[in-house]
Amino acid sequence: MVTKSPEKDFLWRECLDKALKKNRRDPSSRYFQFATIKPNGKPANRTVVFRGFGEQDEIYIISDSRSQKVSELKQSKEAEICWYFSGTRQQFRIAGKAEWESDASSEIIKKLWRKISEPAKSQFYWPSPGREVEELATETDTEIDGSRPPRVFGVLRFLPERVDYLSLRGNPQTRILSCREKNEWVSTRINP
Amino acid sequence: MVTKSPEKDFLWRECLDKALKKNRRDPSSRYFQFATIKPNGKPANRTVVFRGFGEQDEIYIISDSRSQKVSELKQSKEAEICWYFSGTRQQFRIAGKAEWESDASSEIIKKLWRKISEPAKSQFYWPSPGREVEELATETDTEIDGSRPPRVFGVLRFLPERVDYLSLRGNPQTRILSCREKNEWVSTRINP
Repeated sequence: MVTKSPEKDFLWRECLDKALKKNRRDPSSRYFQFATIKPNGKPANRTVVFRGFGEQDEIYIISDSRSQKVSELKQSKEAEICWYFSGTRQQFRIAGKAEWESDASSEIIKKLWRKISEPAKSQFYWPSPGREVEELATETDTEIDGSRPPRVFGVLRFLPERVDYLSLRGNPQTRILSCREKNEWVSTRINP
Repeated sequence: MVTKSPEKDFLWRECLDKALKKNRRDPSSRYFQFATIKPNGKPANRTVVFRGFGEQDEIYIISDSRSQKVSELKQSKEAEICWYFSGTRQQFRIAGKAEWESDASSEIIKKLWRKISEPAKSQFYWPSPGREVEELATETDTEIDGSRPPRVFGVLRFLPERVDYLSLRGNPQTRILSCREKNEWVSTRINP
């Protein structure tokens, strides 16, 4: 008797694309939690906005060079994304490495800067994130140049190496682990 | 001129209680992302369900002793919760230490076991999480004893030490850092 093993044909990226499509009316489907390691070895975790995929399934996140996550990733590139879709009850835990890129002449930087809203752009002209507030915040006179990113703007290019997928639908639930081996993804069904 | 400094009176726990109340119709307000450190030093991140507060503001999470997070926390107790409320656009990043407790005679263990649903109880009778599936899953004949937790059931008691609160409403946004100093919480307003 041949038993079907669905995990052999499982492609996490295809599954994630479908989840994004099915949950597209839920604004929270466009962000996820991003864990890194602090210089003291403790974990850090925060919500960030998904800014698209690159050609090698990289996940783009925009950031400010003065932010804690950028300094943390300079010490250790290791990160894990936890992306949960409440509408379809699917979770993608994506482990990999993140590279910081801030060359204002690079195509991806220019493209992502153009795409963000004016309020999002204005954040890159605020004082250093994480520092104690020195005075009551007032409107600044800084001119925002919408066409050209400021020096502190950049992109984290996160390259997935391992995806732990969980679907809470059904009893038992479905859990599939995918690992990048050279340039191929190999999937195994594991106990939820 | 006296300027009001709202952070002096800021109590993260009170603010979190209000957020839970305001977002109570959103089922996703009852879970958060929990980051830990893997034995290889890389970050781990997953969604877990909030199971209540203890008397010292501890946050309870139930788990299976066979799960990766329990083994990870045996090596390093450090964890960071990222709790985002999409309805009110508030984020609590809560750093602290988690202790594993699985004594079936302890009051909190008994109470949390009683409170969870039958499908949630049944998961603790499944095969070891994370291991490769050896056969097609079938219904098991294991009798679930609803009144008494199985040996693998336990609670993670997470004790907050540092809370980084962010409210995305307003321009600029509000960000307040609270640190536990001895038994008091001290808050400072920081740049978002």
